[in-house]
Amino acid sequence: VRDRQGDPAELTAAAVELHCRAAIEAAGPACVAVKPQLACFERLGAPGIAALRGVVGAAHAAGLLVIADGKRGDVPVTARAYAQSLVGSTPGAFGDVPGLGADAFTVNPLLGRDSLEPFVEAARAAGACVFCLVRTSNPGATDVQDLPAPDQPLHERLAAIVAELGENGIAACGLSDVGAVTGATRPETLGRLRELMPHSIFLLPGVGAQGGSVELLGSAFAPHPAAGLVTASRSIVDAHRSSGVDPATAAAAAAEDLRSTAWVLSRHS
Amino acid sequence: VRDRQGDPAELTAAAVELHCRAAIEAAGPACVAVKPQLACFERLGAPGIAALRGVVGAAHAAGLLVIADGKRGDVPVTARAYAQSLVGSTPGAFGDVPGLGADAFTVNPLLGRDSLEPFVEAARAAGACVFCLVRTSNPGATDVQDLPAPDQPLHERLAAIVAELGENGIAACGLSDVGAVTGATRPETLGRLRELMPHSIFLLPGVGAQGGSVELLGSAFAPHPAAGLVTASRSIVDAHRSSGVDPATAAAAAAEDLRSTAWVLSRHS
Repeated sequence: VRDRQGDPAELTAAAVELHCRAAIEAAGPACVAVKPQLACFERLGAPGIAALRGVVGAAHAAGLLVIADGKRGDVPVTARAYAQSLVGSTPGAFGDVPGLGADAFTVNPLLGRDSLEPFVEAARAAGACVFCLVRTSNPGATDVQDLPAPDQPLHERLAAIVAELGENGIAACGLSDVGAVTGATRPETLGRLRELMPHSIFLLPGVGAQGGSVELLGSAFAPHPAAGLVTASRSIVDAHRSSGVDPATAAAAAAEDLRSTAWVLSRHS
Repeated sequence: VRDRQGDPAELTAAAVELHCRAAIEAAGPACVAVKPQLACFERLGAPGIAALRGVVGAAHAAGLLVIADGKRGDVPVTARAYAQSLVGSTPGAFGDVPGLGADAFTVNPLLGRDSLEPFVEAARAAGACVFCLVRTSNPGATDVQDLPAPDQPLHERLAAIVAELGENGIAACGLSDVGAVTGATRPETLGRLRELMPHSIFLLPGVGAQGGSVELLGSAFAPHPAAGLVTASRSIVDAHRSSGVDPATAAAAAAEDLRSTAWVLSRHS
């Protein structure tokens, strides 16, 4: 694609891919997974999607899992298409078109259980894992997810759906392949959510830039040291802005700080 | 990209684009908009995204609006990135990267009002329109959207959010730039939703292949002949399977049938 090298989309996508590869190299040793935010690649068009594939390859080459964060949710026929895109492949007259090859991905449950089943089926077939939004980390989450519905907050009803969907996917370690996104910004809800989803891995965004504190996340880790996945993005890649050292060193240090804190917590919960 | 012409993704994406262009040519004259399902392009990787851009261009060349159906929803910082992708552009060191150039797009409100505001702001700045999921057409919609929350079904609470977000975007015709996805498969809810969202355009999926009947959608059109947008996909592009005529003729006839039925309804509601 030599003739498009002056194109802002191509150039920006190449820069984004380099940035992500540098972040993986710097912070990867302290992480178990990378969670690319699909929006940040999609907005760069086709070159952005190519860059995303490059980042997934770099993460896998570094021994990291990939959690594709797209929060997809749609009617069943369309959910199947998204699942093909994320963890499967698309059959066709010209041969199979491979998907992203993610190890896990986030989904939105507003459309109900039938809209989630194709995601779980496809993930299970691929040896991958689903993380379903249950209680997100943004302030507006209260508007819908915390509504009394009617005898419990909506997010507890979503948690029950997650637990049901994961029932047939519980591994020997006791963890299932249907996890939950449970924001770290409201740690007081985690205990109840853990009761409702005893086998789910909790994906915990909101630490760092969004103000959540990893020390309060103990109940997420209660069933197993791997039952919680603390995610951080800006607090790692932007760490140099406050530390004054070079970006790679700052990112590595921020990731290592978070890793050691989470690890101590996971061993003592 | 001559060296990738044997690639299944390239070949399938090219075929999908041709199929969509043929559908636009055949059924376009009976339509006001095309609603590409983003999943079906995303699963073909970067070539799929390039095909999507081609389809958007073909729709615009045919004088049709484009409703990008991706049902995105995320925390505010990410919602802004999705909005750049759909109706805006992404600024960067190498120049602005243009987005898809859609005229409208679908969003998922589970993350609450703060997650929707960036979508509405970006749409308004672009002269575009948002359609927010309120009551979808799939059977599983009952699991979450119809929960009593606590004194009204959740979808009525979502409708109230839609009405609020659209308050500052009401045009002289009385219709706002924040619409609602209200499935045609449950027409008995439309009257109440129309009361709650008097200025919103209702996007009405579920007619045809999903079993909804356009004759029951009168309340959607009550405020204005343009207050309802009936969507149909499989019932048009697959019409030849039951009619026995060639695909283009069958698609044109199916679209024209739907257009004339909806038009009569919209003039008499």
